[in-house]
Amino acid sequence: MASIEELLKNKGISKPKVAKRSDQRLPDEIRPVRITRSYCKHAMGSCLIEVGDTRVICAANVENKVPPHMKNTGSGWVTAEYGMLPSSTNTRMVRESSKGRPQGRTHEIQRLIGRSLRAAVNLQEVGERTIWIDCDVLQADGGTRTASITGAFVALKDALTSLVFQQVIARNPIREQVAAISVGIVDGVPCLDLNYEEDSRADVDMNVVMTGGGSIVEIQGTAEGRVFTREQMNDLVDLAQNGIFELMRLQNAALGTP
Amino acid sequence: MASIEELLKNKGISKPKVAKRSDQRLPDEIRPVRITRSYCKHAMGSCLIEVGDTRVICAANVENKVPPHMKNTGSGWVTAEYGMLPSSTNTRMVRESSKGRPQGRTHEIQRLIGRSLRAAVNLQEVGERTIWIDCDVLQADGGTRTASITGAFVALKDALTSLVFQQVIARNPIREQVAAISVGIVDGVPCLDLNYEEDSRADVDMNVVMTGGGSIVEIQGTAEGRVFTREQMNDLVDLAQNGIFELMRLQNAALGTP
Amino acid sequence: MASIEELLKNKGISKPKVAKRSDQRLPDEIRPVRITRSYCKHAMGSCLIEVGDTRVICAANVENKVPPHMKNTGSGWVTAEYGMLPSSTNTRMVRESSKGRPQGRTHEIQRLIGRSLRAAVNLQEVGERTIWIDCDVLQADGGTRTASITGAFVALKDALTSLVFQQVIARNPIREQVAAISVGIVDGVPCLDLNYEEDSRADVDMNVVMTGGGSIVEIQGTAEGRVFTREQMNDLVDLAQNGIFELMRLQNAALGTP
Amino acid sequence: MASIEELLKNKGISKPKVAKRSDQRLPDEIRPVRITRSYCKHAMGSCLIEVGDTRVICAANVENKVPPHMKNTGSGWVTAEYGMLPSSTNTRMVRESSKGRPQGRTHEIQRLIGRSLRAAVNLQEVGERTIWIDCDVLQADGGTRTASITGAFVALKDALTSLVFQQVIARNPIREQVAAISVGIVDGVPCLDLNYEEDSRADVDMNVVMTGGGSIVEIQGTAEGRVFTREQMNDLVDLAQNGIFELMRLQNAALGTP
Amino acid sequence: MASIEELLKNKGISKPKVAKRSDQRLPDEIRPVRITRSYCKHAMGSCLIEVGDTRVICAANVENKVPPHMKNTGSGWVTAEYGMLPSSTNTRMVRESSKGRPQGRTHEIQRLIGRSLRAAVNLQEVGERTIWIDCDVLQADGGTRTASITGAFVALKDALTSLVFQQVIARNPIREQVAAISVGIVDGVPCLDLNYEEDSRADVDMNVVMTGGGSIVEIQGTAEGRVFTREQMNDLVDLAQNGIFELMRLQNAALGTP
Amino acid sequence: MASIEELLKNKGISKPKVAKRSDQRLPDEIRPVRITRSYCKHAMGSCLIEVGDTRVICAANVENKVPPHMKNTGSGWVTAEYGMLPSSTNTRMVRESSKGRPQGRTHEIQRLIGRSLRAAVNLQEVGERTIWIDCDVLQADGGTRTASITGAFVALKDALTSLVFQQVIARNPIREQVAAISVGIVDGVPCLDLNYEEDSRADVDMNVVMTGGGSIVEIQGTAEGRVFTREQMNDLVDLAQNGIFELMRLQNAALGTP
Repeated sequence: MASIEELLKNKGISKPKVAKRSDQRLPDEIRPVRITRSYCKHAMGSCLIEVGDTRVICAANVENKVPPHMKNTGSGWVTAEYGMLPSSTNTRMVRESSKGRPQGRTHEIQRLIGRSLRAAVNLQEVGERTIWIDCDVLQADGGTRTASITGAFVALKDALTSLVFQQVIARNPIREQVAAISVGIVDGVPCLDLNYEEDSRADVDMNVVMTGGGSIVEIQGTAEGRVFTREQMNDLVDLAQNGIFELMRLQNAALGTP
Repeated sequence: MASIEELLKNKGISKPKVAKRSDQRLPDEIRPVRITRSYCKHAMGSCLIEVGDTRVICAANVENKVPPHMKNTGSGWVTAEYGMLPSSTNTRMVRESSKGRPQGRTHEIQRLIGRSLRAAVNLQEVGERTIWIDCDVLQADGGTRTASITGAFVALKDALTSLVFQQVIARNPIREQVAAISVGIVDGVPCLDLNYEEDSRADVDMNVVMTGGGSIVEIQGTAEGRVFTREQMNDLVDLAQNGIFELMRLQNAALGTP
Repeated sequence: MASIEELLKNKGISKPKVAKRSDQRLPDEIRPVRITRSYCKHAMGSCLIEVGDTRVICAANVENKVPPHMKNTGSGWVTAEYGMLPSSTNTRMVRESSKGRPQGRTHEIQRLIGRSLRAAVNLQEVGERTIWIDCDVLQADGGTRTASITGAFVALKDALTSLVFQQVIARNPIREQVAAISVGIVDGVPCLDLNYEEDSRADVDMNVVMTGGGSIVEIQGTAEGRVFTREQMNDLVDLAQNGIFELMRLQNAALGTP
Repeated sequence: MASIEELLKNKGISKPKVAKRSDQRLPDEIRPVRITRSYCKHAMGSCLIEVGDTRVICAANVENKVPPHMKNTGSGWVTAEYGMLPSSTNTRMVRESSKGRPQGRTHEIQRLIGRSLRAAVNLQEVGERTIWIDCDVLQADGGTRTASITGAFVALKDALTSLVFQQVIARNPIREQVAAISVGIVDGVPCLDLNYEEDSRADVDMNVVMTGGGSIVEIQGTAEGRVFTREQMNDLVDLAQNGIFELMRLQNAALGTP
Repeated sequence: MASIEELLKNKGISKPKVAKRSDQRLPDEIRPVRITRSYCKHAMGSCLIEVGDTRVICAANVENKVPPHMKNTGSGWVTAEYGMLPSSTNTRMVRESSKGRPQGRTHEIQRLIGRSLRAAVNLQEVGERTIWIDCDVLQADGGTRTASITGAFVALKDALTSLVFQQVIARNPIREQVAAISVGIVDGVPCLDLNYEEDSRADVDMNVVMTGGGSIVEIQGTAEGRVFTREQMNDLVDLAQNGIFELMRLQNAALGTP
Repeated sequence: MASIEELLKNKGISKPKVAKRSDQRLPDEIRPVRITRSYCKHAMGSCLIEVGDTRVICAANVENKVPPHMKNTGSGWVTAEYGMLPSSTNTRMVRESSKGRPQGRTHEIQRLIGRSLRAAVNLQEVGERTIWIDCDVLQADGGTRTASITGAFVALKDALTSLVFQQVIARNPIREQVAAISVGIVDGVPCLDLNYEEDSRADVDMNVVMTGGGSIVEIQGTAEGRVFTREQMNDLVDLAQNGIFELMRLQNAALGTP
C-alpha cells in the first residue's frame, strides 16, 4: 500500500500545503477517534463513536424472530436503522417522523450499514434471531455512515458476546472485523476521512467498507461534478485501506481485543 | 412548604423505610442531576441533561418566520419536538419515522414542552421568529418530559442570549425561570422524581411545571389505577415545588446565573 | 365546598356583573345540558349530549379481543376515539382523514377520555374485551372533551348493561360514576364551564374529571398567557367539583338511576 | 312515467306481496324523509336529512379561493367531502383518519356528490369562490350517498342565499334543482329507495341523480351478482324519477320554496 | 340496434361532417385496436391492448388466498389495480407512490374494473383464490378504463386457462364475455370511443360494460356541463353496444376463440 | 483492457464451459439489446430499452422550474424516478402507491439514475429547468437500474435536442455519453450483464456507470455472501468497461449519432 506522499510523487504532484485541509490535517490523516463502549444502559451492545465532530450512538439489540424471507432457514439476520437528530446538522433538519417517512438518503444508508454488518457475521451461527443495529447521529460533520459502520461493529460484537455469556449461543459468530471510512478528491488531491466542509466541495466521494483481511465488503464511488479515472479510483481505495486499518486498531482497543 | 417528613407525620404515616425506593432515595429526594451546556455544536443553545439514568439532549434553534396563526402579530413563537432513540428504552422502541407518524404520547409531550417554554418568554420581544426546541431522549428512566422542560429552559435561554449578542434583539426576552418535575403516589407514599420502575407501579402520576416565583404553569395529575383526594393532590404539589426549586438552582449553576 | 360568591368575597373581589359572561350566566353556573340516550341505532350504548351549543355523539361498542399489551391478563380494556365534523367549528376544519393522520390535539383528547373511562370500570370484570368509545363532535362551542367524558359515561354504562342483559358478563363492572367539566380564569374571575368565546381569552384553562365520591381522576391545568397560584388552583377545583356533581345528577336522570 | 304496478303488469309479473320488503313498503314507495334546515350553527347553509334510519348532516361553507385548475377563470367551484361516523354502521367502522387515508369508496362518493351539485349551479355566477359541501353520516341504513346529494342541495341553496343576502353576489346562482335516489332489483322486483338490508342482497344497484326538469345528471348502475337488460335499466330509471320528484317536493317544503 | 345514421335521421339531425372528429372517424366508429397476447413473461395471463394511441398492459396473476370478507366461503375473488406511468399523459403526471397514496380517480377505476371482471367469472369455481388484475397505462389518449376492462378480460381468460392446464381447477370458470367502451355527446352528436381531446370537451361522458349477450354489467353516465335526457341516454347505450360487440370480435380473434 | 479469456488465463482459470451461464452466453457477453426511440407520444424524449428479457420505458420531460436548492443559481437540474409494474417481476410485486411510499431500494435506484445523468449534462447550459427522467420497468430480468441509465441517456439527449430545436436553449448541453452495466462474480467467475437468475446467486454484485472516455461516474460494488479482493474488483471493472462501450455503440445507433 503506498502512502499519500508516494502516491502524489508518483503522479508528479508536489505534496499539498497543510493549509489545504480546513482542520490542518494531512491528506492521509484521519480525525481523532473516540469510542465509548456500553454507552446505552438498555442495549445489549452499544457505543458512542466520535470521529472529529461527528458523533454517533450505535446500539445493538436482539429480537427472537427473523424477517419473513429468513423464516425456517435456521439462519439469523442483521438489520440496521439510521437516524439524525434534528439538531445534529448545520441548519436544523426536519424530523423524519414529522415528514411521515424516512427519506431516500436514510434508506440508502441503513441498507449499506445492514449489508456491511452482515458480512461480519456467520448468520447461521446466530440462529433464528434478528440483530437490530441503531445508528443515531447526535452531531454530523461528515462521514456519519462510515462512522456508523465502524461503531456498529463494536456494538454488534458486544451484543453477540453477551448472547454467548447468557449461553444463548455457543460461540461468537463474528467471522470478520469490519470498519469503514470515506475518501474523496478535494481540490484535486485524494483525501482521507472527509469532514462536512470537504465533503461538500469534493469532486469525487467514495465510501469503502473492508474486512480485517483487506477484502472489500462494499465500495461506493460517486462523481460529484467531475468523473474520475481508474487510476484515481485505485489511489482512493489505497488511502481508504490505510484509514480502515487504523480504525480497526481503535475498535480493538475499545473492545480490549489484542 | 412542608417537608416529606412533616407531610407524613401530619397524616399519621411513619416515615417509609429507605428500602422502599429501589434506588435508596428518600421520598422527597431528587436523583443526581447533571447539565452539560452547549452540548451541540450546531444549535444556537443546547445542553445534555442527565437526571439519574435519564439522559436528554435539548437544543434550541431560531427560524426567521412564525407559524400561520402568528403571522403579522409582531410576536414570536416557541415550539417543541420530542423524540426517543430506539435504543433509549428498556426494550427497543420502533422508530417513529418507520411507523409513518409520531404517536399520541409524543404529540402530548411536545405540546406540553412548547406551552411550558412559552410561559417563560415574552413572545412579543422575540419578534417574528420561531424558536424550535428539540428534546431527544438518549436514555429513558422515567421523567423524560420533565427533564426535557428543565433542560430546554437552559437551551432556550442560551439561544436567546445569543440573539442578543448578535444584536438581533435588544434584550433577553426570558421573563420567568421554568422547570418541571414528576411526583406520584407509590405504595401509598407521595414520592418526588419517579424513576421508570416507580412510575410503572405508581397509583397516581403527576407532572408539575412551575416558575421561579412558585406559580403553576402546568399541572397534570392522572389516576393510574387508583383515584386521589384533594388532600393528596396538594401534598404532591408541595413535594413538586421543593424539587423544582432544587432544579432551578442547578439550572442557574449551569447558566452561571447568580 | 365554597360557592363562587364566597370565594370572591374571601378574596375581596366584588361579585362580577352578570354581563361579564357573554351568555348572561353567573360564574358558577353551567350551561343547559341535554342527554338523549340511545341516539345511535347500531351502537351497544350511545347518547347525544348537548352542553349549551356544544353537541357530541358518544357511542360505546364491544369487541371480543384486547390490545396486545392486555393479552392473557384476563382483563378488559376501554379505549376512546374523538373526532370533530368539519362543519362543527367556527371556520370549517380540514378533515383529519384528508391530512393523513389525527392531529396532536386529537390524540391528547382521546387518551384523556380513555383514561377517564377506565377509572370508572373494573376492567377485570369486563373480561378479555375492548370497549370502543367514539366521541364525535357535531357542533363545538367549548368543553368538547369534558362533554365527551360526561356523555361517554352514559354510553359506556348502557353498553355494559347490555352485556349483562345478554348474559355475557355476570354483573355491571361500573365501579365509579365519572363526569368532567372545564373551569378557567376569565377576566380575573374563576368561571365554570367555559364556552368557546370564554375559553379563547381565558388566562388559565383547567379540565377536571372526578368520581361520584369527589376523588380526582384527572386534573389538567394550563396557564394560557398568565401563570396561576396554588390558591387559584384550589378555587378552580372547588368550582369544578360543584359543576361535576350537577352533571352527575343529569347523567343519573338520563340513565334512570335513582 | 309508469307506476310500479303498471310496470309489473306490463311484464306479466303479479304485484309482489307487501311482505317482500322488510319494512312493509311497496316497491315504489320511499322511506319517511325529514329535513331539518340550519342544523349547524357555524355553517353557511346546513341541514340534517333523515331518510328512514339513514341520517346525514349536510353543510355548505364558502372559501374565497378556488382550486388551482380553476384559477383565473372567473368561475367558482363546488367540492364535496363525505364521511361516516365510526358508530354509524352496523358493526363499528374503523375511523378513516386512523387508517391514514380515505378509502376508495369514500373518494368515489365525494366525487359523485361534487359533480352532482356542480350541475345545480352556474359556477360563473359564484365568482372565484369554493363551496365546500360536507356530508357526514351519523347513521347508515342504505342510500347514504343519495341522501347526501338531496340534503346537500338544501345546504348549498341556503349558503348561496346567504351570499346574496350579504351582497357578495348579485343573485342566487342555483340553476337546477337536484336530488338523488337509489333503486335496485331485489328478489327480481325493481324497488325504490333501498335500505341496507335490501341493498346487501340486491342483484342490481343503481343511483340516479336528476334535475327538476327530469334530465339526468348522473346514472350509475351496477350488476351485483346478476347482469341486467336494457329493459330493466329503463324500468329502474322510471322508478327513480318518481322518487326523485317526491324528494324535490320535500326539499322545496324545507326551503319554503313554492 | 340502430346505426348512428338512423339515430341521427330519426332525430332530424343531418349526418355530421367527417371533419367533426379530430381523427376523421365517423361518430359510430371505434379506433384501431390491437391486442398483443402474453405480453408479460412473468404473469399467468397478460396482454398489451392498444386502442388508438391508448396503450395499456393488462396482467392477471393468481394468489392462493382470498380477502378477509371471502374467507371460508369456498368462493374466489377477482380484484384489480390500475396505474398510469408518469410519462403516459399529456403533461407528466406525479407518481402516486410519491404522493403517498392513490388518488380518488384511481380508486374509482380499479373498483370498476374489479366489479366488471367479477361479472365474467363464476367465483365459486375459482375456489379460494384471488385473481389480481393489473392494468397499467403506458400511454393515455382517452378510454383507459374501458380499454383496461377489455384487455383484462383477455388476460383473465388466459390465466384461468392456465389454471385448468395445470389441473388446479377442473374447467374454465369464465361464464360471460365482458368488454367495455366509452361514449359521449360531443358538439351535440353522440360519439363512440372518445379520444382524449373529445373526452375533454364532451357534454356527457358514459362508460358501458356489457356481456356477450348484450346485458349491462355497469353503466356510468355523467353530465359534464350539460345534463342529458332519457332519450339521449338510450342513444348512447345503443352506440356503446355496437362498439362492444366489435371489441368482442377482436378479443375472440386474439384468444383464438371461434 | 483485457478480454475475459485473458483475464481468466492470467489467473490460471481455464475458460468456463458455455453451459455455466443459464442462457448459453459467454462470461464477457452482453444480452441482446434493442432500443426503440420515441416510444412515448407525450414525452419530450423517450425510448423502450430491452436488454434480454428486461424491458424499461425511459422518458424525459422538462419542467420550467428547479428544486429549492438550485433556485437562483442559473443552473438546471436532472432528477429521476424509477418504478416497477406489479406484473414486471417473477412473483407479483405490491404496488408502491398501495404501500403509501416508495421502498428503500426504489429511492436508492432513482438517486443513482439521477446522479449518473447529471454527470452527462452541463447543467449550467440547461438553464433554470428540471429534466424529469422516468424509468418504468415493464419486465424485470436483472440489470433494471443499469438498463434504466443506458436508456435514459437516449431519452435525455432527445429531450435536450428538442429544446434546441424549439430554440429554448442555444446548443445541446450533453457533455458526456453515459451508459451503465452490471457485473458480478457467479460460481467464482466474473460475468458481464447478469440476468435475474445469476444476480440472485452472485457472490459479488457491481454496477458501473461510465462516460464515453472511460471515466467512472459511479461504481457500487457489494459483497453478497463473499467479500472480494482488490484484484477481483479491477477484473470486474475491466469487464464492465467492455460492456459499456458496446452499449454506447447501440445508443449511438439508435440516436443516429456517427
